Amino acid sequence: MNSALTVNDGIEQPPMVNPHVDGLFEKRRQPLPAVAEYVRGIREGNITMLSRAITLIESRRPDHQPMAQKVLAACRPFSGNSIRLGITGVPGAGKSTFIEAFGGMITARNHRLAVLAIDPGSERSKGSILGDKTRMETLSADPRAFIRPSPGTGSLGGVARKTYETVILCEAAGFDYIFIETIGVGQSEIAVHSMTDFFLLLMISGAGDELQGIKRGVMEMSDLLLINKADGSNMEKAIQAQAQYQSALHLFPAPPSGWTPHALTCSALDKTGLEDVLQEIGNYVTLTKANGYFEQRRREQARYRMYETINENLQNTFYNNPTVEAKLADLEQQVANGELNPYDAAAQLLALKSD
Amino acid sequence: MNSALTVNDGIEQPPMVNPHVDGLFEKRRQPLPAVAEYVRGIREGNITMLSRAITLIESRRPDHQPMAQKVLAACRPFSGNSIRLGITGVPGAGKSTFIEAFGGMITARNHRLAVLAIDPGSERSKGSILGDKTRMETLSADPRAFIRPSPGTGSLGGVARKTYETVILCEAAGFDYIFIETIGVGQSEIAVHSMTDFFLLLMISGAGDELQGIKRGVMEMSDLLLINKADGSNMEKAIQAQAQYQSALHLFPAPPSGWTPHALTCSALDKTGLEDVLQEIGNYVTLTKANGYFEQRRREQARYRMYETINENLQNTFYNNPTVEAKLADLEQQVANGELNPYDAAAQLLALKSD
Repeated sequence: MNSALTVNDGIEQPPMVNPHVDGLFEKRRQPLPAVAEYVRGIREGNITMLSRAITLIESRRPDHQPMAQKVLAACRPFSGNSIRLGITGVPGAGKSTFIEAFGGMITARNHRLAVLAIDPGSERSKGSILGDKTRMETLSADPRAFIRPSPGTGSLGGVARKTYETVILCEAAGFDYIFIETIGVGQSEIAVHSMTDFFLLLMISGAGDELQGIKRGVMEMSDLLLINKADGSNMEKAIQAQAQYQSALHLFPAPPSGWTPHALTCSALDKTGLEDVLQEIGNYVTLTKANGYFEQRRREQARYRMYETINENLQNTFYNNPTVEAKLADLEQQVANGELNPYDAAAQLLALKSD
Repeated sequence: MNSALTVNDGIEQPPMVNPHVDGLFEKRRQPLPAVAEYVRGIREGNITMLSRAITLIESRRPDHQPMAQKVLAACRPFSGNSIRLGITGVPGAGKSTFIEAFGGMITARNHRLAVLAIDPGSERSKGSILGDKTRMETLSADPRAFIRPSPGTGSLGGVARKTYETVILCEAAGFDYIFIETIGVGQSEIAVHSMTDFFLLLMISGAGDELQGIKRGVMEMSDLLLINKADGSNMEKAIQAQAQYQSALHLFPAPPSGWTPHALTCSALDKTGLEDVLQEIGNYVTLTKANGYFEQRRREQARYRMYETINENLQNTFYNNPTVEAKLADLEQQVANGELNPYDAAAQLLALKSD
C-alpha cells in the first residue's frame, strides 16, 4: 500500500480510532495501539501488549475486527513453533495444581509457557483473570509464564476460534509451550483436540463416580492418561488405577499418530512423576515429527479450521438474525415438548432468513 | 384446505405430476403415487409403497421435496413406537451374519424388523439393494423383515437426515424394531448415535489390529459391546476378550442413561448368545423408560435434529453455490499445503456468498 500511514516494517496503521472508545478498555480508556505497535510488542514478548492484542481479538465490536485480523496476519508467520498441549480432567482431578507444578518444571528449564484456560460455561468478565491467577499462584508470578483465560462466548464453536487465535499470538510472542486447559464439559474437548498436538487427560484414582464429569469419548482421544494424586495413602490406589487404565488402553483403537497412549501416575502436590510426563510428550513429538503425523495433523487442523470458520460464520449470521433470535427459543421448546417436529421448526426458522 | 383434491382421510393430493417423470423410477416410468396413496400403502405395511416413499424422500429433485415432506408429515403421527438400534463394527466382525441371526430371532418372535444400512463411502445405485439382500439372504426372504440401504449422499450430514426420515416411514409401516447399521468410518457412528435408542458395537476377539477400523470414541458411546465369533476354537479367546472389555467398561465415564454397558459374547454363526443380547436391550429399554431417559433422549434428538437441519441447510446452500464450488477445492488445497491460512481462505469463500 502507498498510504502515508504505512510504517517502516510494512504493517499498516489502523484507521483513526476514538481514543475514548468504550467497552474494550473501559477502565483505562487508553487509545488502541496501532497494529505495528501491537505486533512489535508481541514480538518483543511484552505481556501487556500481548494481553491487549488478545482482548482485541476477543472483542465483538465489528469495528475492531479489521485491526484484529491485521494483528493476527502479522503474527502468523511467527507462529507454529510451540508444543500445543490440550489438558482436560474432571473437577477435583487437580488441574490447577498440576499446571502449577508441571508448568513450573517447564519454565525452570528455560521454556516459556502460556496457559489458556477455556471456560465454556460462563461468560467471564475480564476481572476473572485474577481468579485464574489465584488458583495458579506460583506460575502467575513466574516471568516465563503467561496465564490467560479464554472467555466462553456462548456461541457455537466460538470458544475454539478465539483460543486458536490466541495460540498464534502467544507463539509469535515466543512461548514454546502452550497449555490449553478445558474443564471437561460439552464440546470443549473436541474443540481443544482440534487445535493441539497432544491431549492429556488428568484423572484421579478409583474408577467410577469421579468419571461422571468426563464426556464419553474423551478417554479414547487422549494421548496420555495421567492419574494425579499418587501420593500419601492414595499411592496404592493410584498405581492400581494406572494398571487398569493401561490395560484398558490396549483395547482402544490405535490412534492414527502411530503413538501408543500410556497411563502414568503423578503427584502434582509432591511434584513426582512430572519428568515422565515431559518425557512422554517429548517422545510423542519425536515420533510424530519423524513419521510426518505432527505436520500432517496441523495441516488437517488448518483445513478443519477453514470449514469451522465458514460454518461458524454461516451459523452466526443466521442465529444472530433478530427475527430468528426472537422465534428460536419458542420453537426449540415446542420441539423439545414434542408439539412440533424438528423439520417444520427448522423450515419455519429458515424461512425467516430472507425476511 | 377446501381443495377439490382433498381426499377422505384428509391428506392432500400432490400437484399434478408428469407421469413420464425421469430419474426417480427410470426403469418403470410409473407415475408417482399421490401422497394419500403412499401413506395408505405405508400404513398397510405395503413394502413396495414403503420402498417407493423412501426413494421419494431420498430424491434430490427439488420438485419431489414438497410431496416428500407431505408423506413424512402424514406418517409422523404414527412414528416413534419402535426400538431403534444402532449397530456398528469393524469390517470382518460379522455384522451381516449377526443381523441375519439376531434379526431372524426377532422376527421369529412375531416382531417386524427394518434394517437400514448406511454406507457413507459410496453413492450406491438402487441396484445395490440386491447386494444387501445377498449378504442377508434369509432375512431378505423373511416376510417380517425389510432391508434397505441408505445411500451415502456425500453431503455434510446428509446421510443422517435421510436415514432418520426412513425410520419415521418404517415406524409408520408398523416395524417395531429398526436396526441402523453403519460400517464404522468417519462421522457415521455419531450420526447413528443421534437417532437411536441403543448403540451396539460388534467386535471380534483379540485386542489390537482389528480395532483400527473403529473410530476413537465409538467404544465409549456404546451401550453394549458384543464379541462375536465366540465359537469353535475361538471360544476361549472371545471369553478372555469379554473379560477384558468388561473391566475396561468399568473405567469409562458412566452414561447419562443410568445404564451400565456390558460386554457379552455371541456366535452369529452358531446362533448362541443372541437371547442375552435381546434381554440386554429389553433391560435397557425397561430401565430408561422408567427413569425417563428414553423419552428425554428422543426429545433431545429432536432438538438436535432441528439444529442439524438448519445447519445442513445453511451449509448446503453455501457449498452448493456454484461460485463457491468452483473455488473451494483450490483454496482448501492451499490451506492444506500451508500456502494460505484458514481464515483468509474462509473469508475469500464467504465473500463469494453474496456474488
